[in-house]
Amino acid sequence: MVTHIGLVGLGKMGNNMRARLRRGGIEVTGYDPRPEVSDVPTLADLVAALPAEQRVIWVMVPAGAPTRGVVDALGELLGQDDIVIEGGNSHYVEDQERAAALAVKGVGYVDVGVSGGVWGLDNGYGLMVGGSPADIASLMPVFDALRPEGPREEGFVHAGPVGAGHFAKMVHNGIEYGLMQAYAEGYELLAAKKDVITDVHGTMKAWTRGTVVRSWLLDLMVKALEQDPELELLDDWVDDSGEGRWTVDEAIDLAVPLPVISASLFARFASRQDKSPALKAVAALRQQFGGHAVKAVD
Amino acid sequence: MVTHIGLVGLGKMGNNMRARLRRGGIEVTGYDPRPEVSDVPTLADLVAALPAEQRVIWVMVPAGAPTRGVVDALGELLGQDDIVIEGGNSHYVEDQERAAALAVKGVGYVDVGVSGGVWGLDNGYGLMVGGSPADIASLMPVFDALRPEGPREEGFVHAGPVGAGHFAKMVHNGIEYGLMQAYAEGYELLAAKKDVITDVHGTMKAWTRGTVVRSWLLDLMVKALEQDPELELLDDWVDDSGEGRWTVDEAIDLAVPLPVISASLFARFASRQDKSPALKAVAALRQQFGGHAVKAVD
Amino acid sequence: MVTHIGLVGLGKMGNNMRARLRRGGIEVTGYDPRPEVSDVPTLADLVAALPAEQRVIWVMVPAGAPTRGVVDALGELLGQDDIVIEGGNSHYVEDQERAAALAVKGVGYVDVGVSGGVWGLDNGYGLMVGGSPADIASLMPVFDALRPEGPREEGFVHAGPVGAGHFAKMVHNGIEYGLMQAYAEGYELLAAKKDVITDVHGTMKAWTRGTVVRSWLLDLMVKALEQDPELELLDDWVDDSGEGRWTVDEAIDLAVPLPVISASLFARFASRQDKSPALKAVAALRQQFGGHAVKAVD
Amino acid sequence: MVTHIGLVGLGKMGNNMRARLRRGGIEVTGYDPRPEVSDVPTLADLVAALPAEQRVIWVMVPAGAPTRGVVDALGELLGQDDIVIEGGNSHYVEDQERAAALAVKGVGYVDVGVSGGVWGLDNGYGLMVGGSPADIASLMPVFDALRPEGPREEGFVHAGPVGAGHFAKMVHNGIEYGLMQAYAEGYELLAAKKDVITDVHGTMKAWTRGTVVRSWLLDLMVKALEQDPELELLDDWVDDSGEGRWTVDEAIDLAVPLPVISASLFARFASRQDKSPALKAVAALRQQFGGHAVKAVD
Repeated sequence: MVTHIGLVGLGKMGNNMRARLRRGGIEVTGYDPRPEVSDVPTLADLVAALPAEQRVIWVMVPAGAPTRGVVDALGELLGQDDIVIEGGNSHYVEDQERAAALAVKGVGYVDVGVSGGVWGLDNGYGLMVGGSPADIASLMPVFDALRPEGPREEGFVHAGPVGAGHFAKMVHNGIEYGLMQAYAEGYELLAAKKDVITDVHGTMKAWTRGTVVRSWLLDLMVKALEQDPELELLDDWVDDSGEGRWTVDEAIDLAVPLPVISASLFARFASRQDKSPALKAVAALRQQFGGHAVKAVD
Repeated sequence: MVTHIGLVGLGKMGNNMRARLRRGGIEVTGYDPRPEVSDVPTLADLVAALPAEQRVIWVMVPAGAPTRGVVDALGELLGQDDIVIEGGNSHYVEDQERAAALAVKGVGYVDVGVSGGVWGLDNGYGLMVGGSPADIASLMPVFDALRPEGPREEGFVHAGPVGAGHFAKMVHNGIEYGLMQAYAEGYELLAAKKDVITDVHGTMKAWTRGTVVRSWLLDLMVKALEQDPELELLDDWVDDSGEGRWTVDEAIDLAVPLPVISASLFARFASRQDKSPALKAVAALRQQFGGHAVKAVD
Repeated sequence: MVTHIGLVGLGKMGNNMRARLRRGGIEVTGYDPRPEVSDVPTLADLVAALPAEQRVIWVMVPAGAPTRGVVDALGELLGQDDIVIEGGNSHYVEDQERAAALAVKGVGYVDVGVSGGVWGLDNGYGLMVGGSPADIASLMPVFDALRPEGPREEGFVHAGPVGAGHFAKMVHNGIEYGLMQAYAEGYELLAAKKDVITDVHGTMKAWTRGTVVRSWLLDLMVKALEQDPELELLDDWVDDSGEGRWTVDEAIDLAVPLPVISASLFARFASRQDKSPALKAVAALRQQFGGHAVKAVD
Repeated sequence: MVTHIGLVGLGKMGNNMRARLRRGGIEVTGYDPRPEVSDVPTLADLVAALPAEQRVIWVMVPAGAPTRGVVDALGELLGQDDIVIEGGNSHYVEDQERAAALAVKGVGYVDVGVSGGVWGLDNGYGLMVGGSPADIASLMPVFDALRPEGPREEGFVHAGPVGAGHFAKMVHNGIEYGLMQAYAEGYELLAAKKDVITDVHGTMKAWTRGTVVRSWLLDLMVKALEQDPELELLDDWVDDSGEGRWTVDEAIDLAVPLPVISASLFARFASRQDKSPALKAVAALRQQFGGHAVKAVD
């Protein structure tokens, strides 16, 4: 069983995870290009610091080129029976490709979708894992240290072969988009009816126990309204981190209708537009056929 | 057969319709509260100017209170066998209620949905009509003068009993919302791909003959791009005139799924918001759980 | 302070609420037209059984005509300082109209949105209340007996004047539609990717702690999958109870964009159609222009 | 100027196009694996039959592997200054890749999006073209023979470099999805209101002149209703041919909100599902929390 791992990437998430792993009795050697936070000076030193019989390295760096770079470098340094764990937000197809490449050298690959954000340090992280049963069995002490207290199956799943962890996390995030947009639409409707609803924050707070819509996201909504009851301090600009797009792409590929999750994604796209070219076009059409009121640019 | 009618409301639409009716050989006495455009000084004078055996009055004033006011006043002035034609944008249920009220006095009621906008004067107006077969039969000379050239059934329909004209027009406008949004989304996508599509206006113009998407709205889109190729002169603010809302309300009442028309309506609502409260709420949630990047209000 | 109330309607909800009220120390006299469950033979007997200085009657019968009938009858039986509590699913505008009618006789009116379903007996009911501060203050012992354990404001809110309780409950249910559809879309996507996700139930169960999407509805989803892992025993027919429709109607009235909640509602409408007339129309169009493959009715 | 071309693929579309080209004075040598329709026995014979100074071959076979196979084979047979025209439904990125591969041998590549379906033989085909100005200039006699009568720019566009033709066609088809769904939703709403609209076919026919929604698709809708007024002969099963999916994928890549076109695509996906797994999940959730009515599978 694995009780000592390497951890590459000591940013906000990686740093917290190192702390939680150590609390849970796992020895962690961390590497980060920033020397002031790193336990070892180089990636090679990290590999050298791990138990020789099986080196296990958890990669926790931004998706895309950074993750690709680290996994490629580890492919050079590791060998038979070692395991790379990709805990970032890779696309599941990339996982499948990397696992195939590493398998040539006998290096195992496990992908883990990690949920929990900045709250994970204390609450534990929800873990969705893809990989071979043998690899995952040997890694259970690591996963148990990270996951929330309580029954293992309420915060951990071996969801399938390589790719399943990030596929599950991708869907998790797609659902998250839909849930957030649903609460947000409800919030807007409450706030728009000021002659009837005199306490929007209190109304949403009253939903936090006993109701059908209670959830952690609702708790956060209430917290946000406590700090800023009219949401006056925030702009309506909402980023998207990629998993929402992948979720819709995947649904299109599988011919699965996804009206709610796609609408949530499109609402974010629209939130970042200064002017909507499409709605300008609609305005132009109305002007053409009816002399309808339009607004000229100032 | 009716060959002389009264016309209440000489705004942009009413004025054009009077002109087209006269071109078509119908005698029209117009009334408008603005004396400089009115043919008679009062509504009572209008009624008095019409053939005594059957007075027919076409009402062409803004929907809601103005139409209600005129129809109520006509109810006082008219009697057995006279006909009120409501050519504005009333809700079809209002038509049904008004028809019942007028029927007590023997006054007929016909509702007409009129399509064609400012182009109707020369192209003719598409007419959707609700009412009794007898009333509509007597009004055919009037409808024939207004509708486009060509076979009657390509620009005129007796769609059903009172209310059918405005119900049909409401659905027509709901479809119009969807069509406009579809072209607008396509326009935005073409315009967003500048490295591949170097001629957006030319691309849409090339669709105006022979393609599946050719239509009058597409012709107008091309015209708008001719005048303003990047739509730089227009804001993305789009009004809605009520029929789109009624269409969705009606669909909800009938349990008819309306994803496209409702999405088109909501896009217009969003276009008129300075800041979206819902997207602020999503931004607030993301800030709560992940310390994600948000934008503070300037 | 009110410690004895009448309760009209002893169906599934009413019966459970009577039990929870009694557990909480409130005296309850129940009335139902079915003698075998009723505490008194008639509505008049119910009124007579209550404290003469202030009769308080909670109405818990189906929305629409049944509620209207009971409230009207109570209007005849009650007088100055008495209070009617409407705990069903009335539209908030009906509440406003009824309150105005009862106020003529000095009878107070309080509307309560109740959430919690069959679980409320043990977990308590989330309560959203509309009415005058004085009426609500006197009713707090009743609300405290019904609401969940814990801080009052996490399961109770005085949301505004009469109507606010049902407006808040309506929005609550609208959000609920969106949340359910978001989980459902995610479920479908997981289940569609069988070569990657080998344990759908386990994946969703692993989300129940520590993740961003954890919620009571997710717990129920997991429970449902425990009982029927492929959802083979259920049809895809989903009813809607009215509040979802009202939510979208209200949003249209207020010009609030509601893409997610409306899409959830339309998905339910579509689920109840044997054949979609709209999609038949699309099939017909494709056949017309391209000789595309269509399916004839068997 | 090119006046003799090879044409690979003599299916429904290719055959019609050969006929129209010949009517327009272009010499066409056709090749198809089915000897009974082919003008020459092999692809090599086709190449040999063309003018030696510049061989131009129009490829009109199904997208994907078939097109890839023909283009690869032509790459072996053609040389400096020859041109391959891809007139099928390739993805624009494939065009870009193929053009780069053929450019190594000096072979030009032009991609053409062709619209018009079975009606193109007589009406002409709308053409969207991507490629180099020189290649396209030399091909104008071919395009002029295929496009509809009337001004060239109303049925033809040089939309940009290689890829632009199929990008434009992809967006054209995305718009087409939205237009069809908009008419279909309107049709369903008219048909659902039988007490008011007694003539659905007549109502839509009356929109074909003078109205804002008049279009070729509307003409087809009317034709379909003429043949089958209640659409009783058709199933509600609607295929999708790929361009709609690509359109939404592309919008996601470019962060362009596409609510209407995506909703139209999802409606088609749903139309092909026997049972919706998502709606089963919603039914399961409702059963869990409220004992709501559900339908068991028969």
